[in-house]
Amino acid sequence: MAVEKEEGVNPMPEKKAVILLSGGLDSTTLLAIAAKDGYELYAVTFLYGQRHSVEIESAKKAAAMFKVKKHSIIELPIDKIVLSSLTGSGEIPMDRTEADIKSGVPSTYVPARNTVFLSLALAIAENIDAEAIFIGVNALDYSGYPDCRPSFIDAFQRLADVATRRTACGDGKIEIKAPLIDMKKSEIIRKGIELGVDYSVTHSCYSPDEEGRSCGRCDSCVLRKKAFTELGMVDPVTYVK
Amino acid sequence: MAVEKEEGVNPMPEKKAVILLSGGLDSTTLLAIAAKDGYELYAVTFLYGQRHSVEIESAKKAAAMFKVKKHSIIELPIDKIVLSSLTGSGEIPMDRTEADIKSGVPSTYVPARNTVFLSLALAIAENIDAEAIFIGVNALDYSGYPDCRPSFIDAFQRLADVATRRTACGDGKIEIKAPLIDMKKSEIIRKGIELGVDYSVTHSCYSPDEEGRSCGRCDSCVLRKKAFTELGMVDPVTYVK
Repeated sequence: MAVEKEEGVNPMPEKKAVILLSGGLDSTTLLAIAAKDGYELYAVTFLYGQRHSVEIESAKKAAAMFKVKKHSIIELPIDKIVLSSLTGSGEIPMDRTEADIKSGVPSTYVPARNTVFLSLALAIAENIDAEAIFIGVNALDYSGYPDCRPSFIDAFQRLADVATRRTACGDGKIEIKAPLIDMKKSEIIRKGIELGVDYSVTHSCYSPDEEGRSCGRCDSCVLRKKAFTELGMVDPVTYVK
Repeated sequence: MAVEKEEGVNPMPEKKAVILLSGGLDSTTLLAIAAKDGYELYAVTFLYGQRHSVEIESAKKAAAMFKVKKHSIIELPIDKIVLSSLTGSGEIPMDRTEADIKSGVPSTYVPARNTVFLSLALAIAENIDAEAIFIGVNALDYSGYPDCRPSFIDAFQRLADVATRRTACGDGKIEIKAPLIDMKKSEIIRKGIELGVDYSVTHSCYSPDEEGRSCGRCDSCVLRKKAFTELGMVDPVTYVK
Protein backbone atom coordinates (compact mmCIF):
# COMPACT_ATOMS: atom_id res chain seq x y z
CA MET A 1 0.00 0.00 0.00
CA ALA A 2 1.43 3.35 -0.96
CA VAL A 3 0.98 5.56 2.06
CA GLU A 4 2.35 9.07 1.88
CA LYS A 5 4.59 9.70 4.83
CA GLU A 6 6.79 12.68 5.47
CA GLU A 7 10.46 12.02 6.03
CA GLY A 8 11.85 13.10 9.38
CA VAL A 9 11.86 12.43 13.09
CA ASN A 10 8.13 12.83 13.62
CA PRO A 11 6.31 11.01 10.86
CA MET A 12 2.90 12.41 10.04
CA PRO A 13 0.10 10.32 11.52
CA GLU A 14 -1.50 8.23 8.82
CA LYS A 15 -4.79 9.44 7.46
CA LYS A 16 -7.47 6.78 7.62
CA ALA A 17 -10.46 6.06 5.42
CA VAL A 18 -13.41 3.71 5.70
CA ILE A 19 -14.18 2.05 2.35
CA LEU A 20 -17.57 0.51 1.57
CA LEU A 21 -16.43 -2.63 -0.25
CA SER A 22 -18.88 -5.03 -1.88
CA GLY A 23 -16.32 -6.85 -3.97
CA GLY A 24 -17.87 -5.55 -7.16
CA LEU A 25 -16.12 -3.73 -9.97
CA ASP A 26 -16.90 -0.26 -8.66
CA SER A 27 -15.98 -0.70 -5.01
CA THR A 28 -12.76 -2.54 -5.85
CA THR A 29 -11.75 0.39 -8.05
CA LEU A 30 -12.74 2.67 -5.18
CA LEU A 31 -10.35 0.80 -2.91
CA ALA A 32 -7.55 1.32 -5.44
CA ILE A 33 -8.30 5.06 -5.58
CA ALA A 34 -8.31 5.41 -1.79
CA ALA A 35 -5.00 3.52 -1.61
CA LYS A 36 -3.47 5.81 -4.23
CA ASP A 37 -4.73 8.84 -2.28
CA GLY A 38 -2.55 7.69 0.63
CA TYR A 39 -5.16 6.52 3.11
CA GLU A 40 -4.73 3.72 5.58
CA LEU A 41 -7.63 1.52 4.49
CA TYR A 42 -10.43 0.18 6.68
CA ALA A 43 -12.74 -1.79 4.42
CA VAL A 44 -16.24 -2.77 5.48
CA THR A 45 -18.46 -5.32 3.76
CA PHE A 46 -22.07 -5.89 4.76
CA LEU A 47 -23.75 -9.28 4.66
CA TYR A 48 -27.40 -8.43 4.15
CA GLY A 49 -28.89 -11.49 2.54
CA GLN A 50 -27.98 -10.44 -0.95
CA ARG A 51 -28.33 -13.31 -3.36
CA HIS A 52 -24.85 -12.74 -4.67
CA SER A 53 -23.01 -13.62 -1.47
CA VAL A 54 -20.21 -14.79 -3.75
CA GLU A 55 -19.35 -11.08 -3.64
CA ILE A 56 -18.02 -11.56 -0.11
CA GLU A 57 -15.23 -13.77 -1.41
CA SER A 58 -14.47 -11.13 -4.02
CA ALA A 59 -14.40 -8.48 -1.30
CA LYS A 60 -11.88 -10.51 0.70
CA LYS A 61 -9.63 -10.89 -2.34
CA ALA A 62 -9.90 -7.18 -3.14
CA ALA A 63 -9.04 -6.28 0.46
CA ALA A 64 -5.97 -8.51 0.28
CA MET A 65 -4.97 -7.02 -3.09
CA PHE A 66 -4.77 -3.53 -1.63
CA LYS A 67 -3.42 -4.56 1.78
CA VAL A 68 -6.18 -3.04 3.86
CA LYS A 69 -5.36 -2.46 7.52
CA LYS A 70 -8.65 -4.05 8.57
CA HIS A 71 -11.56 -5.66 6.74
CA SER A 72 -14.77 -5.80 8.76
CA ILE A 73 -17.52 -8.10 7.53
CA ILE A 74 -20.73 -7.17 9.28
CA GLU A 75 -24.02 -9.03 9.30
CA LEU A 76 -26.89 -6.67 8.80
CA PRO A 77 -30.45 -7.98 8.79
CA ILE A 78 -31.63 -5.47 6.19
CA ASP A 79 -33.22 -8.30 4.19
CA LYS A 80 -35.41 -9.04 7.21
CA ILE A 81 -36.86 -5.56 7.30
CA VAL A 82 -37.24 -4.51 3.68
CA LEU A 83 -38.28 -6.02 0.39
CA SER A 84 -36.08 -6.04 -2.69
CA SER A 85 -35.49 -8.47 -5.51
CA LEU A 86 -31.80 -8.18 -4.62
CA THR A 87 -32.45 -9.76 -1.23
CA GLY A 88 -34.79 -12.48 -2.38
CA SER A 89 -38.21 -10.87 -2.86
CA GLY A 90 -39.31 -11.09 -6.47
CA GLU A 91 -37.48 -11.63 -9.70
CA ILE A 92 -34.20 -10.03 -10.73
CA PRO A 93 -34.87 -8.27 -14.07
CA MET A 94 -33.02 -9.82 -17.01
CA ASP A 95 -32.00 -8.91 -20.55
CA ARG A 96 -32.86 -5.24 -20.23
CA THR A 97 -31.41 -2.65 -22.54
CA GLU A 98 -29.16 0.05 -21.18
CA ALA A 99 -31.99 2.57 -21.71
CA ASP A 100 -34.38 0.40 -19.68
CA ILE A 101 -31.82 0.01 -16.92
CA LYS A 102 -31.35 3.74 -16.68
CA SER A 103 -35.06 4.59 -16.43
CA GLY A 104 -37.01 4.35 -13.19
CA VAL A 105 -36.15 2.66 -9.92
CA PRO A 106 -35.46 -1.06 -10.52
CA SER A 107 -36.73 -3.88 -8.28
CA THR A 108 -33.13 -4.45 -7.21
CA TYR A 109 -33.28 -1.16 -5.30
CA VAL A 110 -32.91 -1.94 -1.58
CA PRO A 111 -34.82 0.67 0.47
CA ALA A 112 -32.47 3.17 2.11
CA ARG A 113 -29.52 0.82 1.64
CA ASN A 114 -26.82 3.40 1.10
CA THR A 115 -28.18 5.49 3.98
CA VAL A 116 -27.81 2.49 6.28
CA PHE A 117 -24.35 1.61 4.90
CA LEU A 118 -23.05 5.18 5.22
CA SER A 119 -24.45 5.46 8.75
CA LEU A 120 -22.55 2.40 9.91
CA ALA A 121 -19.44 3.61 8.06
CA LEU A 122 -19.84 6.91 9.91
CA ALA A 123 -19.91 5.07 13.25
CA ILE A 124 -16.72 3.22 12.32
CA ALA A 125 -15.07 6.40 11.01
CA GLU A 126 -15.78 8.22 14.24
CA ASN A 127 -14.52 5.29 16.28
CA ILE A 128 -11.17 4.97 14.49
CA ASP A 129 -10.73 8.70 13.83
CA ALA A 130 -10.95 8.33 10.07
CA GLU A 131 -11.25 11.49 8.06
CA ALA A 132 -12.98 10.05 5.00
CA ILE A 133 -15.57 7.50 3.92
CA PHE A 134 -15.40 6.21 0.34
CA ILE A 135 -18.57 4.99 -1.36
CA GLY A 136 -18.66 3.65 -4.92
CA VAL A 137 -21.96 5.12 -6.05
CA ASN A 138 -22.37 5.97 -9.70
CA ALA A 139 -25.01 8.38 -10.94
CA LEU A 140 -24.78 7.39 -14.60
CA ASP A 141 -25.32 3.65 -14.52
CA TYR A 142 -27.59 3.78 -11.48
CA SER A 143 -29.49 6.97 -12.09
CA GLY A 144 -32.67 5.14 -11.05
CA TYR A 145 -31.41 4.61 -7.51
CA PRO A 146 -32.17 7.70 -5.40
CA ASP A 147 -29.29 6.93 -3.05
CA CYS A 148 -26.67 6.99 -5.81
CA ARG A 149 -27.22 10.64 -6.76
CA PRO A 150 -25.04 13.65 -5.94
CA SER A 151 -27.91 15.25 -3.98
CA PHE A 152 -27.98 12.20 -1.70
CA ILE A 153 -24.22 12.30 -1.10
CA ASP A 154 -24.39 16.06 -0.42
CA ALA A 155 -27.22 15.55 2.08
CA PHE A 156 -25.32 12.78 3.84
CA GLN A 157 -22.26 15.03 4.07
CA ARG A 158 -24.34 17.74 5.76
CA LEU A 159 -25.70 15.12 8.15
CA ALA A 160 -22.20 13.79 8.94
CA ASP A 161 -21.09 17.35 9.69
CA VAL A 162 -23.43 17.50 12.71
CA ALA A 163 -23.92 13.83 13.61
CA THR A 164 -20.73 12.84 15.43
CA ARG A 165 -18.83 14.03 18.45
CA ARG A 166 -15.82 15.02 16.35
CA THR A 167 -17.64 16.79 13.53
CA ALA A 168 -20.24 18.49 15.73
CA CYS A 169 -17.56 19.83 18.07
CA GLY A 170 -15.49 21.31 15.24
CA ASP A 171 -12.62 18.87 15.80
CA GLY A 172 -12.47 17.70 12.20
CA LYS A 173 -14.53 16.65 9.24
CA ILE A 174 -15.47 13.19 8.06
CA GLU A 175 -15.60 13.59 4.31
CA ILE A 176 -17.95 11.49 2.19
CA LYS A 177 -16.04 10.72 -1.00
CA ALA A 178 -17.76 9.35 -4.09
CA PRO A 179 -15.05 9.57 -6.75
CA LEU A 180 -16.88 7.32 -9.24
CA ILE A 181 -20.12 9.27 -9.18
CA ASP A 182 -19.71 10.95 -12.58
CA MET A 183 -17.67 8.28 -14.33
CA LYS A 184 -18.79 5.97 -17.09
CA LYS A 185 -18.32 2.27 -16.33
CA SER A 186 -15.59 2.02 -18.96
CA GLU A 187 -13.77 4.98 -17.39
CA ILE A 188 -13.96 3.24 -14.00
CA ILE A 189 -12.35 0.11 -15.45
CA ARG A 190 -9.65 2.13 -17.21
CA LYS A 191 -8.86 3.93 -13.96
CA GLY A 192 -8.75 0.65 -12.05
CA ILE A 193 -6.38 -1.01 -14.49
CA GLU A 194 -4.12 2.05 -14.26
CA LEU A 195 -4.11 1.55 -10.48
CA GLY A 196 -3.40 -2.18 -10.58
CA VAL A 197 -6.85 -3.70 -10.11
CA ASP A 198 -7.13 -7.31 -11.21
CA TYR A 199 -10.79 -7.45 -12.26
CA SER A 200 -10.81 -11.24 -12.31
CA VAL A 201 -11.37 -11.18 -8.54
CA THR A 202 -14.35 -8.82 -8.74
CA HIS A 203 -17.95 -9.92 -8.96
CA SER A 204 -20.84 -7.84 -10.25
CA CYS A 205 -23.67 -10.28 -11.09
CA TYR A 206 -27.01 -10.02 -9.26
CA SER A 207 -27.90 -13.62 -10.06
CA PRO A 208 -24.87 -15.95 -10.17
CA ASP A 209 -25.28 -19.71 -10.55
CA GLU A 210 -24.31 -22.19 -7.85
CA GLU A 211 -20.71 -22.17 -8.97
CA GLY A 212 -20.58 -18.40 -8.69
CA ARG A 213 -20.56 -17.82 -12.46
CA SER A 214 -22.12 -14.56 -13.62
CA CYS A 215 -25.46 -14.76 -15.45
CA GLY A 216 -24.55 -12.23 -18.13
CA ARG A 217 -28.17 -11.06 -18.26
CA CYS A 218 -28.95 -8.98 -15.16
CA ASP A 219 -28.58 -5.20 -15.23
CA SER A 220 -25.22 -5.35 -13.54
CA CYS A 221 -23.80 -7.91 -15.99
CA VAL A 222 -25.21 -6.02 -18.99
CA LEU A 223 -23.51 -2.78 -17.95
CA ARG A 224 -20.25 -4.50 -17.08
CA LYS A 225 -20.00 -6.50 -20.28
CA LYS A 226 -20.78 -3.44 -22.37
CA ALA A 227 -18.01 -1.46 -20.65
CA PHE A 228 -15.36 -4.10 -21.30
CA THR A 229 -16.52 -4.32 -24.91
CA GLU A 230 -16.22 -0.53 -25.28
CA LEU A 231 -12.64 -0.80 -24.08
CA GLY A 232 -11.93 -3.60 -26.56
CA MET A 233 -11.13 -5.89 -23.64
CA VAL A 234 -12.23 -9.31 -22.48
CA ASP A 235 -13.99 -9.31 -19.09
CA PRO A 236 -11.95 -11.77 -17.00
CA VAL A 237 -14.93 -13.13 -15.02
CA THR A 238 -16.71 -16.30 -16.15
CA TYR A 239 -20.21 -15.95 -17.58
CA VAL A 240 -22.86 -18.65 -17.89
CA LYS A 241 -23.86 -17.07 -21.18
CA MET B 1 -38.93 -11.72 12.25
CA ALA B 2 -41.24 -11.55 9.28
CA VAL B 3 -40.82 -9.11 6.44
CA GLU B 4 -43.68 -6.64 6.24
CA LYS B 5 -46.24 -7.41 3.62
CA GLU B 6 -49.67 -5.89 3.48
CA GLU B 7 -52.43 -8.40 2.95
CA GLY B 8 -55.20 -7.12 0.74
CA VAL B 9 -56.22 -3.49 0.41
CA ASN B 10 -57.21 -1.31 3.32
CA PRO B 11 -60.52 0.41 2.60
CA MET B 12 -59.45 3.23 4.96
CA PRO B 13 -55.68 3.29 4.83
CA GLU B 14 -54.30 4.31 8.20
CA LYS B 15 -51.36 6.61 8.46
CA LYS B 16 -48.37 4.67 9.70
CA ALA B 17 -45.41 5.63 11.81
CA VAL B 18 -42.18 3.89 12.75
CA ILE B 19 -41.32 4.46 16.43
CA LEU B 20 -37.80 4.03 17.80
CA LEU B 21 -38.61 2.32 21.09
CA SER B 22 -35.93 1.52 23.67
CA GLY B 23 -38.32 0.87 26.53
CA GLY B 24 -37.05 3.91 28.40
CA LEU B 25 -39.09 6.73 29.80
CA ASP B 26 -38.69 8.98 26.77
CA SER B 27 -39.44 6.48 24.01
CA THR B 28 -42.43 5.05 25.86
CA THR B 29 -43.87 8.56 26.11
CA LEU B 30 -43.08 8.96 22.43
CA LEU B 31 -45.14 5.88 21.66
CA ALA B 32 -48.06 7.37 23.59
CA ILE B 33 -47.79 10.62 21.61
CA ALA B 34 -47.71 8.81 18.27
CA ALA B 35 -50.73 6.74 19.31
CA LYS B 36 -52.64 9.89 20.28
CA ASP B 37 -51.70 11.46 16.93
CA GLY B 38 -53.62 8.64 15.25
CA TYR B 39 -50.80 6.65 13.70
CA GLU B 40 -50.80 2.93 13.20
CA LEU B 41 -47.69 2.05 15.21
CA TYR B 42 -44.66 0.08 14.01
CA ALA B 43 -42.21 -0.03 16.88
CA VAL B 44 -38.59 -0.98 16.39
CA THR B 45 -36.12 -1.88 19.14
CA PHE B 46 -32.44 -2.46 18.47
CA LEU B 47 -30.35 -5.00 20.35
CA TYR B 48 -26.87 -3.56 20.18
CA GLY B 49 -25.06 -5.02 23.14
CA GLN B 50 -26.21 -2.33 25.51
CA ARG B 51 -25.58 -3.34 29.09
CA HIS B 52 -29.14 -2.56 30.00
CA SER B 53 -30.77 -5.27 27.90
CA VAL B 54 -33.48 -5.34 30.55
CA GLU B 55 -34.79 -2.44 28.45
CA ILE B 56 -35.92 -4.94 25.82
CA GLU B 57 -38.48 -6.39 28.24
CA SER B 58 -39.64 -2.87 28.99
CA ALA B 59 -39.94 -2.17 25.27
CA LYS B 60 -42.13 -5.25 24.82
CA LYS B 61 -44.42 -4.16 27.65
CA ALA B 62 -44.62 -0.61 26.27
CA ALA B 63 -45.46 -1.97 22.81
CA ALA B 64 -48.26 -4.06 24.31
CA MET B 65 -49.53 -1.11 26.33
CA PHE B 66 -50.10 0.95 23.20
CA LYS B 67 -51.22 -1.94 20.98
CA VAL B 68 -48.59 -1.50 18.29
CA LYS B 69 -49.35 -3.16 14.97
CA LYS B 70 -45.89 -4.69 14.89
CA HIS B 71 -42.85 -4.63 17.15
CA SER B 72 -39.58 -5.49 15.41
CA ILE B 73 -36.59 -6.36 17.57
CA ILE B 74 -33.46 -6.16 15.48
CA GLU B 75 -29.98 -7.31 16.35
CA LEU B 76 -27.44 -4.72 15.35
CA PRO B 77 -23.74 -5.39 15.92
CA ILE B 78 -22.98 -1.74 16.69
CA ASP B 79 -21.10 -2.79 19.83
CA LYS B 80 -18.76 -4.79 17.59
CA ILE B 81 -17.74 -1.75 15.58
CA VAL B 82 -17.64 1.15 18.00
CA LEU B 83 -16.52 1.80 21.55
CA SER B 84 -18.80 3.25 24.21
CA SER B 85 -19.18 2.72 27.91
CA LEU B 86 -22.84 2.04 27.17
CA THR B 87 -21.88 -1.07 25.19
CA GLY B 88 -19.26 -2.39 27.56
CA SER B 89 -16.10 -0.38 26.90
CA GLY B 90 -15.08 1.53 30.00
CA GLU B 91 -16.95 2.66 33.07
CA ILE B 92 -20.41 4.18 33.18
CA PRO B 93 -20.09 7.54 34.98
CA MET B 94 -21.84 7.65 38.36
CA ASP B 95 -23.08 10.23 40.87
CA ARG B 96 -22.65 13.19 38.54
CA THR B 97 -24.50 16.44 39.12
CA GLU B 98 -27.00 17.64 36.55
CA ALA B 99 -24.52 20.35 35.51
CA ASP B 100 -21.83 17.73 34.90
CA ILE B 101 -24.23 15.57 32.93
CA LYS B 102 -25.17 18.46 30.68
CA SER B 103 -21.57 19.49 29.87
CA GLY B 104 -19.49 17.72 27.23
CA VAL B 105 -20.04 14.43 25.45
CA PRO B 106 -20.30 11.60 28.02
CA SER B 107 -18.60 8.20 27.66
CA THR B 108 -22.06 6.69 27.24
CA TYR B 109 -22.26 8.38 23.82
CA VAL B 110 -22.41 5.64 21.15
CA PRO B 111 -20.76 6.90 17.94
CA ALA B 112 -23.34 7.76 15.28
CA ARG B 113 -26.00 5.72 17.10
CA ASN B 114 -29.01 7.81 16.23
CA THR B 115 -27.82 8.12 12.63
CA VAL B 116 -27.74 4.33 12.38
CA PHE B 117 -31.11 3.93 14.14
CA LEU B 118 -32.82 6.55 11.96
CA SER B 119 -31.35 5.01 8.80
CA LEU B 120 -32.81 1.60 9.60
CA ALA B 121 -36.09 3.24 10.59
CA LEU B 122 -36.05 4.98 7.21
CA ALA B 123 -35.63 1.64 5.44
CA ILE B 124 -38.60 0.23 7.37
CA ALA B 125 -40.67 3.37 6.78
CA GLU B 126 -40.08 3.18 3.04
CA ASN B 127 -40.90 -0.51 3.00
CA ILE B 128 -44.26 -0.20 4.81
CA ASP B 129 -45.16 3.18 3.33
CA ALA B 130 -45.04 4.99 6.66
CA GLU B 131 -45.19 8.74 6.58
CA ALA B 132 -43.42 9.45 9.85
CA ILE B 133 -40.57 8.27 12.05
CA PHE B 134 -40.70 9.14 15.75
CA ILE B 135 -37.47 9.48 17.73
CA GLY B 136 -37.34 10.36 21.42
CA VAL B 137 -34.27 12.60 21.42
CA ASN B 138 -34.11 15.35 23.98
CA ALA B 139 -31.83 18.36 23.58
CA LEU B 140 -32.05 19.53 27.18
CA ASP B 141 -31.07 16.46 29.16
CA TYR B 142 -28.73 15.16 26.46
CA SER B 143 -27.25 18.36 25.13
CA GLY B 144 -23.83 16.66 25.16
CA TYR B 145 -24.90 14.11 22.55
CA PRO B 146 -24.47 15.61 19.08
CA ASP B 147 -27.14 13.32 17.64
CA CYS B 148 -29.84 14.57 20.01
CA ARG B 149 -29.79 18.17 18.78
CA PRO B 150 -32.28 19.95 16.52
CA SER B 151 -29.56 20.53 13.89
CA PHE B 152 -29.04 16.77 13.67
CA ILE B 153 -32.75 16.06 13.27
CA ASP B 154 -33.03 18.80 10.62
CA ALA B 155 -30.07 17.36 8.70
CA PHE B 156 -31.54 13.86 8.84
CA GLN B 157 -34.84 15.23 7.51
CA ARG B 158 -33.06 16.77 4.54
CA LEU B 159 -31.30 13.45 3.93
CA ALA B 160 -34.57 11.50 4.15
CA ASP B 161 -36.09 13.88 1.59
CA VAL B 162 -33.68 12.63 -1.08
CA ALA B 163 -32.70 9.16 0.16
CA THR B 164 -35.68 6.96 -0.68
CA ARG B 165 -37.59 6.05 -3.78
CA ARG B 166 -40.78 7.65 -2.46
CA THR B 167 -39.30 10.88 -1.16
CA ALA B 168 -36.85 11.39 -4.03
CA CYS B 169 -39.58 10.89 -6.62
CA GLY B 170 -41.93 13.40 -4.97
CA ASP B 171 -44.45 10.72 -4.00
CA GLY B 172 -44.59 11.73 -0.36
CA LYS B 173 -42.54 12.75 2.60
CA ILE B 174 -41.21 10.66 5.47
CA GLU B 175 -41.29 13.07 8.37
CA ILE B 176 -38.75 12.81 11.21
CA LYS B 177 -40.67 13.70 14.37
CA ALA B 178 -38.90 14.49 17.63
CA PRO B 179 -41.72 15.81 19.83
CA LEU B 180 -39.70 15.55 23.07
CA ILE B 181 -36.72 17.52 21.82
CA ASP B 182 -37.45 20.73 23.74
CA MET B 183 -39.20 19.24 26.76
CA LYS B 184 -37.89 18.98 30.29
CA LYS B 185 -37.88 15.46 31.72
CA SER B 186 -40.65 16.38 34.16
CA GLU B 187 -42.76 17.74 31.28
CA ILE B 188 -42.24 14.46 29.41
CA ILE B 189 -43.49 12.48 32.41
CA ARG B 190 -46.48 14.79 32.88
CA LYS B 191 -47.38 14.39 29.20
CA GLY B 192 -47.01 10.61 29.42
CA ILE B 193 -49.25 10.32 32.47
CA GLU B 194 -51.86 12.43 30.69
CA LEU B 195 -51.68 9.93 27.80
CA GLY B 196 -51.93 6.84 29.97
CA VAL B 197 -48.31 5.73 30.27
CA ASP B 198 -47.63 3.39 33.18
CA TYR B 199 -44.02 4.30 33.98
CA SER B 200 -43.54 1.20 36.11
CA VAL B 201 -42.87 -0.75 32.91
CA THR B 202 -40.20 1.65 31.66
CA HIS B 203 -36.49 1.29 32.32
CA SER B 204 -33.91 4.08 32.13
CA CYS B 205 -30.85 2.86 34.05
CA TYR B 206 -27.49 2.49 32.24
CA SER B 207 -26.21 0.06 34.86
CA PRO B 208 -28.93 -2.15 36.36
CA ASP B 209 -28.09 -5.01 38.73
CA GLU B 210 -28.65 -8.66 37.88
CA GLU B 211 -32.26 -8.48 38.94
CA GLY B 212 -32.85 -5.52 36.66
CA ARG B 213 -33.05 -2.95 39.45
CA SER B 214 -31.94 0.56 38.57
CA CYS B 215 -28.67 1.79 40.08
CA GLY B 216 -29.97 5.25 40.94
CA ARG B 217 -26.52 6.74 40.28
CA CYS B 218 -25.91 6.82 36.52
CA ASP B 219 -26.74 9.96 34.51
CA SER B 220 -30.00 8.48 33.30
CA CYS B 221 -31.17 7.55 36.82
CA VAL B 222 -30.10 10.94 38.21
CA LEU B 223 -32.15 12.84 35.64
CA ARG B 224 -35.14 10.53 35.99
CA LYS B 225 -35.26 10.63 39.78
CA LYS B 226 -34.93 14.40 39.79
CA ALA B 227 -37.86 14.75 37.38
CA PHE B 228 -40.19 12.59 39.48
CA THR B 229 -39.14 14.55 42.57
CA GLU B 230 -39.90 17.85 40.80
CA LEU B 231 -43.38 16.53 40.09
CA GLY B 232 -43.81 15.49 43.72
CA MET B 233 -44.26 11.90 42.57
CA VAL B 234 -42.70 8.58 43.48
CA ASP B 235 -40.85 6.93 40.59
CA PRO B 236 -42.50 3.51 40.27
CA VAL B 237 -39.30 1.65 39.24
CA THR B 238 -37.19 -0.14 41.86
CA TYR B 239 -33.81 1.36 42.71
CA VAL B 240 -30.86 -0.37 44.37
CA LYS B 241 -30.16 2.89 46.16
